[in-house]
Amino acid sequence: MATPTERAPSNKMNRRVERSRHTVLATAFELLSEGGVARFTVDEVARRSGVAKTTIYRHWPTREALVIDACSQMITQQEAPDTGSLEGDVKAILMEIAHLLQTANWSFVLPSIIDTAERDPEFAEIHSRIQRGHAAPLREVLQRAAGRGELSAHADVSAIVALLLGPLFYRRWFSREPIDDQFLEAVIERALA
Amino acid sequence: MATPTERAPSNKMNRRVERSRHTVLATAFELLSEGGVARFTVDEVARRSGVAKTTIYRHWPTREALVIDACSQMITQQEAPDTGSLEGDVKAILMEIAHLLQTANWSFVLPSIIDTAERDPEFAEIHSRIQRGHAAPLREVLQRAAGRGELSAHADVSAIVALLLGPLFYRRWFSREPIDDQFLEAVIERALA
Repeated sequence: MATPTERAPSNKMNRRVERSRHTVLATAFELLSEGGVARFTVDEVARRSGVAKTTIYRHWPTREALVIDACSQMITQQEAPDTGSLEGDVKAILMEIAHLLQTANWSFVLPSIIDTAERDPEFAEIHSRIQRGHAAPLREVLQRAAGRGELSAHADVSAIVALLLGPLFYRRWFSREPIDDQFLEAVIERALA
Repeated sequence: MATPTERAPSNKMNRRVERSRHTVLATAFELLSEGGVARFTVDEVARRSGVAKTTIYRHWPTREALVIDACSQMITQQEAPDTGSLEGDVKAILMEIAHLLQTANWSFVLPSIIDTAERDPEFAEIHSRIQRGHAAPLREVLQRAAGRGELSAHADVSAIVALLLGPLFYRRWFSREPIDDQFLEAVIERALA
């Protein structure tokens, strides 16, 4: 077994490796936000992050591996709220998503990932995981509401999720109209009608 | 005034110019469908179309001008149906859009245009015109229904369009779930509730 003094340098090295990995991923994500997948280069990541290209290639053997790893950071899942009513839960989730759609870096990167996913199965898989993360809290509160009888047990949860998220995504990326409280109210009222 | 014999060669030349313009635009659109905006090159358009690069650059001084012109072909507007009822009109429009979303070349190109539009005002303008074309028939039948009292005069037409198109776009580009008749019925029923 290693003694503490023997272990110290290795821990220090691990921390340094971890720190540079983190720097590279953060820079990569920043670059993706600015220029999308197509304009992404390892050269530019190296230049901006100050991490040597050889070090970057030691962790990510190809440009694609780094892009995919940076995109994977977008796979997050909002925690499902529990306000006591389906409408309250849905409203809390949509307000949070509306806020993120208008402020989060991923909202600038997602069209590029979707575009790449149209032609590249590896990106289609990453996008599918990001997408499932976005839909998961709604699925959870809808299933919970069905469990306690607030929603019909025959309700088509996937269709309701599309009716709730679709109009918000439409306004963010297609019509570019504001997503305000009045709009959220209208969407929730109709989707849960 | 030019006599017919004098005009003939010029007409013939115009037809040839028109034909090569058409070939270049069709090839450009094909390339966009395959690789999106980012991978588009004039070299490849020249190679595939058989039209010389010098000829292409005579019509489109830059790569961007050609990409934008090719994307402009996507600006079309479905004719608004008139079935006699709002529900019938909306259903006819959504069935046509659902079909196009799953078959038309533009449905593969649109994410790339949206991605580029996030950063480029000229593409944002093209995308906005494509988008208005997609929404126009729904706006027309909704306004017509409001005119004859089938829809409240206070109804928020923009919100209803988002409620109708959003879920379809969501299934095509985000969740990649099928857009079947049952789904269309659910969307229409809720959006017009």
